[in-house]
Amino acid sequence: MSDLKQVSCSKCFNGRQLVYEHSSKELGCRMKFSIYLPSAALEPNAKLPVVYYLSGLTCTEQNMITKSGFQKYAEKYKLIVVGPDTSPRNCNVPGEDDSWDLGTGAGFYVDATQEPWSKHYRMYSYVTQELRNVINENFPAVDPSRTGITGHSMGGHGALVAFLRNPDVYNAVTAFAPISNPMESSWGVKCLSTYLGDDKTAWKEYDATELVRRQPRKDVKIIIDQGSEDEWMSFLKPENFKNACETSNQPLEFNMREGYDHGYYFVATFIENHLEHFSKALRD
Amino acid sequence: MSDLKQVSCSKCFNGRQLVYEHSSKELGCRMKFSIYLPSAALEPNAKLPVVYYLSGLTCTEQNMITKSGFQKYAEKYKLIVVGPDTSPRNCNVPGEDDSWDLGTGAGFYVDATQEPWSKHYRMYSYVTQELRNVINENFPAVDPSRTGITGHSMGGHGALVAFLRNPDVYNAVTAFAPISNPMESSWGVKCLSTYLGDDKTAWKEYDATELVRRQPRKDVKIIIDQGSEDEWMSFLKPENFKNACETSNQPLEFNMREGYDHGYYFVATFIENHLEHFSKALRD
Repeated sequence: MSDLKQVSCSKCFNGRQLVYEHSSKELGCRMKFSIYLPSAALEPNAKLPVVYYLSGLTCTEQNMITKSGFQKYAEKYKLIVVGPDTSPRNCNVPGEDDSWDLGTGAGFYVDATQEPWSKHYRMYSYVTQELRNVINENFPAVDPSRTGITGHSMGGHGALVAFLRNPDVYNAVTAFAPISNPMESSWGVKCLSTYLGDDKTAWKEYDATELVRRQPRKDVKIIIDQGSEDEWMSFLKPENFKNACETSNQPLEFNMREGYDHGYYFVATFIENHLEHFSKALRD
Repeated sequence: MSDLKQVSCSKCFNGRQLVYEHSSKELGCRMKFSIYLPSAALEPNAKLPVVYYLSGLTCTEQNMITKSGFQKYAEKYKLIVVGPDTSPRNCNVPGEDDSWDLGTGAGFYVDATQEPWSKHYRMYSYVTQELRNVINENFPAVDPSRTGITGHSMGGHGALVAFLRNPDVYNAVTAFAPISNPMESSWGVKCLSTYLGDDKTAWKEYDATELVRRQPRKDVKIIIDQGSEDEWMSFLKPENFKNACETSNQPLEFNMREGYDHGYYFVATFIENHLEHFSKALRD
């Protein structure tokens, strides 16, 4: 059994917005995560789909739950929504607090292989395995056979990679303004080279554009929303991902949202569409 | 003309969430405020109602616009929503940063008469006069004859007081968990005694329970939402306000919301009801 400790619980849209902390073996530290239980999850013998939301650079488990307004739709569509943190915390890895786009708040959802990162920076295994096990074991209302994943920016990258590499785990995926081709983005190159070293073969396992070229999931439609006025557009490379999907016959719904920027006002505007999609894609 | 400067602009639910700063004469400092313009406000010759949202202790103009999710409903109900800051900023008033519930972030929507506060801490006049004039003069889509006011906690106090004292200005009011009888609350006593001195006659002008006893607005229904699990309930005194409304025949809809606490998850859950009320109460 894990050592879950409840940090907070607030009623919200009739369900419960909770935050827990636990000791992560993968990361070697205490980690927080959020979980929203719609009121349907509080019924006896409830079994509901679960959606993981991966956050972007600098975020904690708090940003999405305070800023996206997703709870109204998680309640409406009877979805449990889990939000991990974005990196290990308080591990005293040298250099982890030197910049906002590497280290703390910037785990990039990879398993680092390079010193001094490799001991703690294992967010890929944490999100796709350890945290999922913690959720499935401790929240009986979760139906593990109906699991979706989404995310914003760096978290959109994490969601696409997790989905493409784990067809047995994730049944559906969406993303908001994902870093779609990190090998071609200065954010991605900085994180991938630091965490994984110079051999770009290793990078390809964490690049959605590379992965979808090689192993598309032709049975599942990917949905991406992207703001046309995104101030980080040149770091995101959505065109590369679109082209790769086309080449490999990966079904993709790509929505360019006119006038929207990169922030949570954009996420909040479109999150209902994403949760509605999950409710259909993860139907019993 | 005022010296408005746009700080940020993001598209959100098809409208625009803006933040501006300007020089306030009442407060003697630069102040920020938020304004949401629904897409209907961007049409030529638009004339829409405006709702002021006053925030609680420690807040800036950011909390409500990032956490309440009101924009969806402001767009839906065609309301312009303005959010002032909660105190003067950077005025170097001695003691203003010593505690979280006095001074910075805690202007309490009064005009201070005591040294060293009286020069800058004039949030009552700022909100009810100066800022309104700035808004009415600079945003032609605002119809000043249809003005509502609401708020949360300290801001709910500010909204009720502004509404009761200015029947010519505010046509409708609601509040979330307002400090309803500050003369009987330790938060209120701290702020009122510091800003206004020991003579409680002056305090009564800033106490909704006192005001509604003396000068109810029998033509307008007040709406209040209150979480039953509010951790600050003993500071809010909703029963005193309810009793005073009953005694003075002030129409009041008081909704005790079972299980909700004091925070923005509570506000987010019920803000649609409030904006729907304003759209009806401020109908053309």
